[in-house]
Amino acid sequence: MKADIFVLSAPAGGGKTTIANLLLKEIPDLQRIVTYTTRKPRPGEKNGVDYVFVSKEEFEKLIQENAFLEHAIVHGNYYGTPKREVFELIEKGIDVLLVIDVQGMRQIKSNYKDIISIFLIPPSFDELKLRMKKRGDSEEEIEKRLHTAIKELKAWKEYDFIVINDDIQKAKENTKYIILSNRLKTKRFDISKIEDEKLRNLLK
Amino acid sequence: MKADIFVLSAPAGGGKTTIANLLLKEIPDLQRIVTYTTRKPRPGEKNGVDYVFVSKEEFEKLIQENAFLEHAIVHGNYYGTPKREVFELIEKGIDVLLVIDVQGMRQIKSNYKDIISIFLIPPSFDELKLRMKKRGDSEEEIEKRLHTAIKELKAWKEYDFIVINDDIQKAKENTKYIILSNRLKTKRFDISKIEDEKLRNLLK
Repeated sequence: MKADIFVLSAPAGGGKTTIANLLLKEIPDLQRIVTYTTRKPRPGEKNGVDYVFVSKEEFEKLIQENAFLEHAIVHGNYYGTPKREVFELIEKGIDVLLVIDVQGMRQIKSNYKDIISIFLIPPSFDELKLRMKKRGDSEEEIEKRLHTAIKELKAWKEYDFIVINDDIQKAKENTKYIILSNRLKTKRFDISKIEDEKLRNLLK
Repeated sequence: MKADIFVLSAPAGGGKTTIANLLLKEIPDLQRIVTYTTRKPRPGEKNGVDYVFVSKEEFEKLIQENAFLEHAIVHGNYYGTPKREVFELIEKGIDVLLVIDVQGMRQIKSNYKDIISIFLIPPSFDELKLRMKKRGDSEEEIEKRLHTAIKELKAWKEYDFIVINDDIQKAKENTKYIILSNRLKTKRFDISKIEDEKLRNLLK
């Protein structure tokens, strides 16, 4: 295996986007796959950067073409991870970071057992609420999202790693350790990268 | 599992002792178990710190008492890891770092599948030779050790992680990532450490 698929999940307001962006800046050979969605862009969100925004019709056509690694309907909108982009990166030796929800993780895991899944847990329930408010979600939206968050929190046991997000920098560092240490796994060791010929021959 | 057993191996001159000492300084809740041996202390080596130096008779008595997690004869001398000290630390939630050779790793792995094994690889064969010379080993000693080193290098595939030791600081950091990320594994997550009662109850 030349590279791996990392799934980063958290309840809404759990800080997964912030941490993902920090990781992508700091870690070489790590790339994010932009999720396709049919939901409307929030103010400031850019097409092709935050999400690929497509129509319901386009999305359903892609489902039929089996173009998604996983897809789901959340609050009435489609979300999906395009398959081709993921495996193009893996083939190049670039780790893939997928920022997706619990449903998405389950779908991918059912087909790809070897993904590495990371679940971010907020430090407290009130902090989670606060973050949703800060983000400017409406009261009704917050209620709906809290309901989902409570359900999602219970899924922590299904993940490989748990990172408590009480401090963004600390949580980012911890997530970084997971991604970097994975590169040191024996299955990722590439003898051909050993420059010394004598040593390379001994290792064969 | 409250804590884990890490095995750090490298061919002689591979830098395992230096790296182990740096890790023990930097990482909280990580302790080394001092190996028992019947070999004579080298200049500067302290009893109970570098090794526990015992007589052949004492060592053989301990073998009969099943007091070792692993033990082996290397170049005519016994080396052994005391079992009790390891599990006392694990029970306290302290990760254990064992700096042992390939034979030792194999023995432990045959009884304890869940150990995390790390193999340090020197950047080149000549560098390995050079380090042995720097350490002041005699020509004869170096020949003997090189022979062992070549055999040991071939065991890299049996380890969980490979760290290339071309730069002590970098190799130390990489090994640190392995130890720290392991603490984030879901099996190591302890709900009782979540201070917020509301969140703790949701996670149950």
